[in-house]
Amino acid sequence: MKRISLLGATGSIGTQTLEVIREHPEEFELSAITFGSNLEAGREAIKEFKPKFVSVKEKEDYIRLKDEFSGEAISFSYGEEGNIEAAVYTESDVTVNALLGSIGLVPTLKAIESKKTVALANKETLVTAGHIVTEAARKNGTALLPVDSEHSAIFQCLQGENLSDVTRLILTASGGSFRERSREELKGVTVEEALNHPNWSMGAKITIDSATMMNKGLEVIEAFWLFGIPYSNIDVLLHKESIIHSMVEFEDGSVKAQLGTPDMKVPIQYALTHPSRLPLQNTKRLNLWDHGKLHFEKPDFARFKCLHFAYESGKMGGTMPTVLNAANEEAVAQFLAGRIEFLDIEDRIERTLEAHSLIGNPDLEAIQHADQEARAFVRSLLN
Amino acid sequence: MKRISLLGATGSIGTQTLEVIREHPEEFELSAITFGSNLEAGREAIKEFKPKFVSVKEKEDYIRLKDEFSGEAISFSYGEEGNIEAAVYTESDVTVNALLGSIGLVPTLKAIESKKTVALANKETLVTAGHIVTEAARKNGTALLPVDSEHSAIFQCLQGENLSDVTRLILTASGGSFRERSREELKGVTVEEALNHPNWSMGAKITIDSATMMNKGLEVIEAFWLFGIPYSNIDVLLHKESIIHSMVEFEDGSVKAQLGTPDMKVPIQYALTHPSRLPLQNTKRLNLWDHGKLHFEKPDFARFKCLHFAYESGKMGGTMPTVLNAANEEAVAQFLAGRIEFLDIEDRIERTLEAHSLIGNPDLEAIQHADQEARAFVRSLLN
Repeated sequence: MKRISLLGATGSIGTQTLEVIREHPEEFELSAITFGSNLEAGREAIKEFKPKFVSVKEKEDYIRLKDEFSGEAISFSYGEEGNIEAAVYTESDVTVNALLGSIGLVPTLKAIESKKTVALANKETLVTAGHIVTEAARKNGTALLPVDSEHSAIFQCLQGENLSDVTRLILTASGGSFRERSREELKGVTVEEALNHPNWSMGAKITIDSATMMNKGLEVIEAFWLFGIPYSNIDVLLHKESIIHSMVEFEDGSVKAQLGTPDMKVPIQYALTHPSRLPLQNTKRLNLWDHGKLHFEKPDFARFKCLHFAYESGKMGGTMPTVLNAANEEAVAQFLAGRIEFLDIEDRIERTLEAHSLIGNPDLEAIQHADQEARAFVRSLLN
Repeated sequence: MKRISLLGATGSIGTQTLEVIREHPEEFELSAITFGSNLEAGREAIKEFKPKFVSVKEKEDYIRLKDEFSGEAISFSYGEEGNIEAAVYTESDVTVNALLGSIGLVPTLKAIESKKTVALANKETLVTAGHIVTEAARKNGTALLPVDSEHSAIFQCLQGENLSDVTRLILTASGGSFRERSREELKGVTVEEALNHPNWSMGAKITIDSATMMNKGLEVIEAFWLFGIPYSNIDVLLHKESIIHSMVEFEDGSVKAQLGTPDMKVPIQYALTHPSRLPLQNTKRLNLWDHGKLHFEKPDFARFKCLHFAYESGKMGGTMPTVLNAANEEAVAQFLAGRIEFLDIEDRIERTLEAHSLIGNPDLEAIQHADQEARAFVRSLLN
């Protein structure tokens, strides 16, 4: 029986993690959950899975839930502190971090220090503090398991292999909602158009990141930290069907790939069952003859500027990826709020990166400072 | 340092095995070789690799070579006995069986009994005596490593995985020289046309087997024995580019594939380095963006009758696969000699299978008898 702390239980990854747990009651137990403002979904999860620890975003929701479930043996908490309490919860073996944004970082670090296995869906953890997080994992002998479809694919391909035999990681990218459009055709696209992702059903922020390919850029940075492969040996391959989830090339020229129909439950479950597997019901089996063709293309870095920014920020290191990520979060929020155009996202990121003075090997405080500064800078551009 | 016995050193697989050994003099040593009638190539290999044991097919060649190399510390032998001596050669760790045809069987068994690791390129070993060979390997704790590109792909995908989690093996097939032709268009094709394989440069027999897809059928039977997966869970997928070499589906719906440019040196070297890898020079790296598209199709068993025969023979078991293989060898030889038409190959196999009375769990003698009987039957159909 694996006991699980699930951070961000009502988001896209969180909900699907609950589905995986639901399917294997004999294997998994939900010990602790945290969620934001979706009280409806959170309440359902509490009733169904009966976690012993629950934390919500706002104090008032905490008070309300505590009252509602006063008859049951549940500890309640709230805020960022609550996420940390869930991450290190004594009666959990695995912490699934499905938080969105940079609030995911500290809970990951605390879980590592408590020697929990961490299943990581929170991009910001590695993008902004990869050097701190991987060093902590190494020092504590803790496994950092990727939940992202691409990194899980690479992780699966690496089973039974030596990292030292790897010559290249190849991350596939759908190209997002606008992959068939030129830069010229991107002018004036609407939020609605941008949210219409061809293959995956995801949250708004990540769908926009997919359209700008910043999503892939952040994944490149994550892959660098997760697998320790230099940026020059990480490639991005446009593959519009999203069937091949990513690949690994070895020094003998052999390439391994992990494939499947688009279903986040597969990488989520793999992170929970690794190094074994379990059956997964209701996932559509892949039959390549039904697809007929798979397409591949080299990404154009001039077309997908965010991808270029990500490689450059990753290579520069230090606070640069933090600034990249923060500027992107802020710019995407502005785009989703209808305050800037789609192509302005890149523009804001580029200007913020240019304005930033890099700090090498930053500590958490410096990272948080760079994050805040970058956001403020993007906001200042609105006026 | 791995010491290698190479059986069938001057054939297609043998020559490429020598290339792999040549590239890694610090890793591999050629202790023993056997070859057939290509004295020229055999002589070159002796001079270059200085094996301590050499065996040839014919006694007169044995006498000639023994005389030629009389000044050197080389033991010579000949005939089937010579293959066995090489297979069990005391100063070897690994026996690479690249013999063509059913003469490969006994040397494999003897190598297993001598507890050598066996790198197996000889199809007949598993097709005709899979039950005996796998049982012997189990009993002697010997590893049977596939050299075939498809089986090596599956084997690579299985590293770090549990066989019990596998739900399906998917063997890819180029479809051979005539994949674009209907059965009607196969009437009257010439030997020359049949020998023109689109992707791989191989020997004549295997190129014809590729055109009839008997090659894939024999591989399905081999896969059954190598990996212990039931026939109903082994699929064949037409994939004309031969870039994905084969795939494994797991119970969670995840699929792993091994890919590469067509180069037999990759699976050959992997069998020699497993579970590690070594660099391989001069192998073309795979960049899927150069290919643009990969194609997939469900094979039509009415179009590719040999594939159907192979599944049926495999499922029936006993002497049936031996008869399938022997009838095919004989029929292909007749086709290559210009004595029968291309479509007659299937006809001969079908008639031979129909005429055979299955013997369950046959011993080596019964297998050899069934083999001879099937060949004689095909020959009798010529008159």
